[in-house]
Amino acid sequence: MLAARLHEYTEEMSEALSIDEVDRPTADTPDAVVVEVEGAGWCQTDNHIVEGMWAEYAPQPLPMTLGHENAGTVVDVGENVDIVDPGDQVICHPHVTCGTCRPCRLGEDMYCENARFPGLTTDGGFAEYLATNERAVIPLPEGVDPAEIAPHADAGITAYHAVKKAVDELNPGDHAVVIGVGGLGHIGLQCLDATSAAEITALDLKAEARDLAADLGAHHVVDPSSADVAAELDAITDGVGARQVLDFVGADVTTGYAPDITAAGGDHHIVGYGGHIHEPAQALVDGEFDYRGTLVGRYAELQELVALVERGDVALRTSRHDLGDINTVAERLEHGEIEGRAVVIP
Amino acid sequence: MLAARLHEYTEEMSEALSIDEVDRPTADTPDAVVVEVEGAGWCQTDNHIVEGMWAEYAPQPLPMTLGHENAGTVVDVGENVDIVDPGDQVICHPHVTCGTCRPCRLGEDMYCENARFPGLTTDGGFAEYLATNERAVIPLPEGVDPAEIAPHADAGITAYHAVKKAVDELNPGDHAVVIGVGGLGHIGLQCLDATSAAEITALDLKAEARDLAADLGAHHVVDPSSADVAAELDAITDGVGARQVLDFVGADVTTGYAPDITAAGGDHHIVGYGGHIHEPAQALVDGEFDYRGTLVGRYAELQELVALVERGDVALRTSRHDLGDINTVAERLEHGEIEGRAVVIP
Amino acid sequence: MLAARLHEYTEEMSEALSIDEVDRPTADTPDAVVVEVEGAGWCQTDNHIVEGMWAEYAPQPLPMTLGHENAGTVVDVGENVDIVDPGDQVICHPHVTCGTCRPCRLGEDMYCENARFPGLTTDGGFAEYLATNERAVIPLPEGVDPAEIAPHADAGITAYHAVKKAVDELNPGDHAVVIGVGGLGHIGLQCLDATSAAEITALDLKAEARDLAADLGAHHVVDPSSADVAAELDAITDGVGARQVLDFVGADVTTGYAPDITAAGGDHHIVGYGGHIHEPAQALVDGEFDYRGTLVGRYAELQELVALVERGDVALRTSRHDLGDINTVAERLEHGEIEGRAVVIP
Amino acid sequence: MLAARLHEYTEEMSEALSIDEVDRPTADTPDAVVVEVEGAGWCQTDNHIVEGMWAEYAPQPLPMTLGHENAGTVVDVGENVDIVDPGDQVICHPHVTCGTCRPCRLGEDMYCENARFPGLTTDGGFAEYLATNERAVIPLPEGVDPAEIAPHADAGITAYHAVKKAVDELNPGDHAVVIGVGGLGHIGLQCLDATSAAEITALDLKAEARDLAADLGAHHVVDPSSADVAAELDAITDGVGARQVLDFVGADVTTGYAPDITAAGGDHHIVGYGGHIHEPAQALVDGEFDYRGTLVGRYAELQELVALVERGDVALRTSRHDLGDINTVAERLEHGEIEGRAVVIP
Repeated sequence: MLAARLHEYTEEMSEALSIDEVDRPTADTPDAVVVEVEGAGWCQTDNHIVEGMWAEYAPQPLPMTLGHENAGTVVDVGENVDIVDPGDQVICHPHVTCGTCRPCRLGEDMYCENARFPGLTTDGGFAEYLATNERAVIPLPEGVDPAEIAPHADAGITAYHAVKKAVDELNPGDHAVVIGVGGLGHIGLQCLDATSAAEITALDLKAEARDLAADLGAHHVVDPSSADVAAELDAITDGVGARQVLDFVGADVTTGYAPDITAAGGDHHIVGYGGHIHEPAQALVDGEFDYRGTLVGRYAELQELVALVERGDVALRTSRHDLGDINTVAERLEHGEIEGRAVVIP
Repeated sequence: MLAARLHEYTEEMSEALSIDEVDRPTADTPDAVVVEVEGAGWCQTDNHIVEGMWAEYAPQPLPMTLGHENAGTVVDVGENVDIVDPGDQVICHPHVTCGTCRPCRLGEDMYCENARFPGLTTDGGFAEYLATNERAVIPLPEGVDPAEIAPHADAGITAYHAVKKAVDELNPGDHAVVIGVGGLGHIGLQCLDATSAAEITALDLKAEARDLAADLGAHHVVDPSSADVAAELDAITDGVGARQVLDFVGADVTTGYAPDITAAGGDHHIVGYGGHIHEPAQALVDGEFDYRGTLVGRYAELQELVALVERGDVALRTSRHDLGDINTVAERLEHGEIEGRAVVIP
Repeated sequence: MLAARLHEYTEEMSEALSIDEVDRPTADTPDAVVVEVEGAGWCQTDNHIVEGMWAEYAPQPLPMTLGHENAGTVVDVGENVDIVDPGDQVICHPHVTCGTCRPCRLGEDMYCENARFPGLTTDGGFAEYLATNERAVIPLPEGVDPAEIAPHADAGITAYHAVKKAVDELNPGDHAVVIGVGGLGHIGLQCLDATSAAEITALDLKAEARDLAADLGAHHVVDPSSADVAAELDAITDGVGARQVLDFVGADVTTGYAPDITAAGGDHHIVGYGGHIHEPAQALVDGEFDYRGTLVGRYAELQELVALVERGDVALRTSRHDLGDINTVAERLEHGEIEGRAVVIP
Repeated sequence: MLAARLHEYTEEMSEALSIDEVDRPTADTPDAVVVEVEGAGWCQTDNHIVEGMWAEYAPQPLPMTLGHENAGTVVDVGENVDIVDPGDQVICHPHVTCGTCRPCRLGEDMYCENARFPGLTTDGGFAEYLATNERAVIPLPEGVDPAEIAPHADAGITAYHAVKKAVDELNPGDHAVVIGVGGLGHIGLQCLDATSAAEITALDLKAEARDLAADLGAHHVVDPSSADVAAELDAITDGVGARQVLDFVGADVTTGYAPDITAAGGDHHIVGYGGHIHEPAQALVDGEFDYRGTLVGRYAELQELVALVERGDVALRTSRHDLGDINTVAERLEHGEIEGRAVVIP
C-alpha cells in the first residue's frame, strides 16, 4: 500500500514526506484492529514532528508514516475484539493503550505506561491502512462521514480536553478567553459555548478568524495587533480578569498575557506550543494563577466529543486533499494559509 | 507606641527598619479590632518588601510598619464585633477583608476586592498594637501561646494552603516532593504527613534541614548539590515521577525540576519566589503538568491549621527576638542563618 | 403599612393569611437594608408553612408576615452599607447572614449559624417594606423588572443550586431526568440546558407541562400516568440509566423511581418535598446511587442565576396578583391551578 | 478439587454450603488467570447471599461456589497476560471486568457492563482454585501473607472506598462518625485516621468494639444502647454535627440517625445493609444532607489500600478456619460471634 513517510527531520516542508510503497498491516494480536483510512487530518504537530521538535520527547524510528487524526472502516480484527466488526466505521483515538497499567485503570489513558502513538512513535494514518487496537476505536454514529470527523481524533479531543478542564472552573457570568481561532481554537470555542454559560472573548491576529469566532459564539473579539490586550480584557471583565484562558497558540507573547489578564485563582491553559514561558515565580504567587499543560485527551472524552458532534454542537471546517499533495498541505499550514482543518484522503 | 518601620527600599538589611514612636491605633469602625501584639513572625517576604520587590504588585505608603504574622490579645473592638471581646487571645489572618464582594462570598477571601494587608499595604504588627477587623481574627484554643503560633498567620497558612491543594490530588502510595525544608517547608511537610498517606521526598541543600525532614516524616531525603535530582526521583518513584511537588524555594533551578520529576498530570506548586520559570510550552504539553501559584491561604484554612496545631500534628520551630533587634533578624535570614522561624516580641 | 400575616397554622388555604396594618421597618443596624417590595413570589413552601410543616424545623413567632421571594427598591440603609444606595433595584437572597461564622467564611451561607430567613423565621415580603441586610441584596442589571425576577430569589436559586450540583457530574451525552415541570422544574430545565450538553428527559402528569418542557429544551418527555417510567428510561438511555435525576416533586412515588432509573454511581436530587423515601439500604448499595438533599442556594449562586437571566438563558412564566388576593393564590396553587409562578404586588 | 457450594437459598446457616468435588478451572481465554486460593474471607454478604437477598439484584446459577475475598498464588495464565506470571502472589479484586466499556474507560470498573463477580454471579474462592482475569489481580508486596490480606479484597476495599469519598469532604477539625466497628468498620476507621485529620467518633453496641475503636484512633466512642446518640453528637461536635457519617451497619435505626447527627451539607454513607431508609423528603431538604450508596470499590482503590497495608497504616484482625468448618463460620457470624474477619483456608 502507499504511505507518506518521514525519512529525516527537515525545516523544508515542501520535502517533508515521501510517498512509499509499504506492507499492509495485519491483525496479528488478539486485540488488533486494522482500519482502512478514509480521512487523516494534518496537524500543526505534524510540522513540528517533521522539524524534529518531538525527537527529545518521543522515540521515532525513521522512516515512519505520519498521521495521528484518523477515521475509516474496520477491515480486520484480532480474535478477542468485541466492540467492533469488519465493516464498522470508526474514529481512532491516537493513543493505543494497554488497559492494565495504573493510569489506564484510573481512566487516564493518555498516561498509559505501555502505549504507542501511531503517527508519532509508530506508523500512522497517512496510508491506506492503519494498525491500531480495540481500546483505541470508537464506532461512529449513523451517517457521520469519516473524512469529516477525522480531525477530532487529535485536534478535536485536544481542544475538548482543555475546555473541559476550564469549564469545571467556570460559573455563569465568568469570563473565558480563547487565544487563537484556528484548527483547534475554533473547535474549543464551540465546546466552551456548548458546555458553559461563560462570557467568551476571542483573540486572533486575522480578521477572518475573529469573524469566525463571533459566528461561533464569542461575545467579544480582540485584535492583539491593534489593541492593548490587558486594557481590553480589563474593560471587558470589569477589572476582574478572565477566570480561564485557553491558549491555542503557546507563543512567548501569548503565555506572557497570563499575569495581566488572568483573574486571581484562574488558569492559563497551554494547548498550542512552540514558544516559552518566561515569568517570575512571584507573578504566579501574586495572582495565584496556574499554567496548565494539555496533552491530547482521554478516550472517554473523545466519546463525549462525538456526542457533541452528533448533537450538532460542534462543526468542523475542513478541506480535502489527496495523499500525493501532502507536502503542499504541510507547506501551506506552515505559512498560515489553511483555513479550518486539512484532511488527507489516502 | 513603638513600631519598626520601613522608610525606603534598600538591599542593606542591617538598615532595613527604624524603630519609631507612632500613634496607637483605635477601634474607629464598627468592625474594628485592636490587638496588643505578643508575637510577630519575620518572614522572607519581609526581606523582599524591604528590597522593593513588592512595590510593583502592591501599593506601599512609606513609611510603613512591617509585620504580617501576628498574634496577641484583643484590647478594643468596634460596636458590631461579635466573635471576640477584649481580653481574648487571637491569631490574625493577614488579609483584612470586606465580606460582601463576590470573592468573599465564595469563601475566596484572599481575592477580596476591598482588602488591606497589614504589613504589606498598611501598618503591620512589628509594633505594640495592630489595627485589624472582625473578619481577620481567630480566637486561640486554651493554652496556646500567641508568640508560638504567630508565624502560622502567614508562613503556616501559606504552607497549609499549598499542601491542601496538593493533598486533593494525592492517593495513598503516590509520591510528593517538598523542595526546601525551611520556615515554610517544615510546616508544609508536617501538614502533608498529617492529612495524606503519600510517600514524601524532601530536598534541601543543608544537612540539618534534611535531618529535620526525616524527623518530621519524610520517607526519603535528597541533597540536590550531590545527587542528580531527576535520577534520584526516578529511582524513588519507580519511574512514575512525583504527582505533586511543593516548591518552597521558587528559584530558577527548582522550577526547572518540573519536567524531569513531575508525573504525567502532576502539579508543581510555586510557593517560594525570587526566581523565574523558563520552560518551553511543549514541556508542559508533553508531560501535561501544571505550574500552580500559591497566595497565602483562606481564613477558613487558618482555622483548619489551628485545629492541626491543637491536635499536635504540626509543631513550629521558633526563636524569639526583641523589637530592637529586628534588623539583625532581617540580616541573619538573608544569610540563611535562622533555623525555623524568628518571632519578634514587641 | 399593610402585610399578609399568618396567625395560626391551618389546612384551609382560603383563610391562610390576614392583611394587617403593621409598623414599617427601619434601618436600625449598621448593615441594615430596607427594601420597598415591588414583587414577592408565592411558593409551594408558603403552603407548607401555613400548614405547619416547617414548625418542627424552624421557629416561627406568629403572627408573622410570609414572603421569601422578594425584589424591589432600596429605601433606607445602615451607616456601614457600601454595595447599595437608596434608589437601587435589588433582588433579595432569602437568607440574612452574619458573614463571620465558619459556614459563611466557606461561602456556605445557607448554613450560617446566625441567620434569619424572612418569611420563614421573621417577617417577610408580602408587605410594603422588607427589612434585610447588605449581605442579602444583589443589585439588578439595568432594565430588569423586580416583579419579573422576584421568584428567582427562592424558586430560581433552589432549582439552580440543584442543577449546578447535577451538572458537575454530567458529561456530554449523559442523561438527566427532570421530574415535575412546574414553578421550580421549568427553571431547572432551562438552567440544565444552558450549562450542560446532557440529554434531558422530563416527566410530568400534565400535558401542558410536558409541552412546556419540550419548548424549553427537553429531548424526551414522559407521562408517568400512562407509561412504565423504568422501561421508558431504559429505552431512552440504552439501558444505562440517568446519571442525574432532579426530583422537583419529592413524593413517595417519585423518590421510589431512583433504584430503577438512576445509573450506577448516579444521584437522585430531592428538591421538592412532601413525601418520603422508603428504600432498602441494599438498593443504594447495589446501584451505588445517592439521595441528595437540596436547601435553597448560595448568595453567589443567585448572582450566577441573575447572569443567566441577563444572558437570556432563563425565562420565568409569571402571573401578577394584588396583596388582597393572596389567599386565592394560596388556594389555586394547592389545587395545581397556577401555571408558572404567582407574584404578589404589595 | 473441593469447593464450598450453595445449592439452595436457606435461613439455616448450619446447612448453608456443601463441600463438593468439582473440576479445576483452566486458563482458557487470552486474559485468563487461575489462582490457587490461600485465603478467602467470609463476609456478611455471604450470609445475605445464602438467604437469597441478592437473587433479585444479581443472577446466581445454583449450585455456585461462594467466596469473593480471595488471595493466593497464580498457577496458570492466558497467552496475553503481562502483569503476572505463575508463582506470583496476588490479591483478587472481586470484579472481573472487560476494560473496553465506557465505565471501564472512565476507571469506574465496578460499573463495568460486561463483568462477572466470582462468588456472587459465578464460582468464587471457597475452593482450591479460582478463575479470574488479568484486570482483576494485584501483585502482593514482598512478604505479605495472602491469608492475612484476603479480606481486603472486599471488606477492605468497600470500607476504603466509602472512607475515600468521605475524606474528600473532611477538613482538619471536622467531625466524622463511624457506625459499627466490626469487620468493615475497624478497617474504615484506620483508613480514616491514616488519610485525614478529622475528629472521629465511633458507635458500637459492644464494649470490645468500642475499645478496639479507641485503640485504632477514635477520639470519642459512644454506646448507642445507653446514650442519646443525637445529644452525644451534639455535645461532641459543639452543635455543628458530623460532616461525614460512615454507616457500616445499615439498619433502620442507624439510617435514622442522619437528620439528627449529620451537619448541614453532610453525607451519610450507606455501607452496611439489611435495613431500610424511612425519612421524609423534607428532612433531606432542611439539613441538605445526602444518603450515599457504596458498592465495593475500584481496582485502583485496592492498589491504594495495599499501599496503606504496606505502610503499616491498616492492620486486619483475622481468624483462620478450614474449608470443612465453613458453615460454622457462617453461623457464628450470624450470631455476632466473630471478632475481626474470618478467613477460610481451602
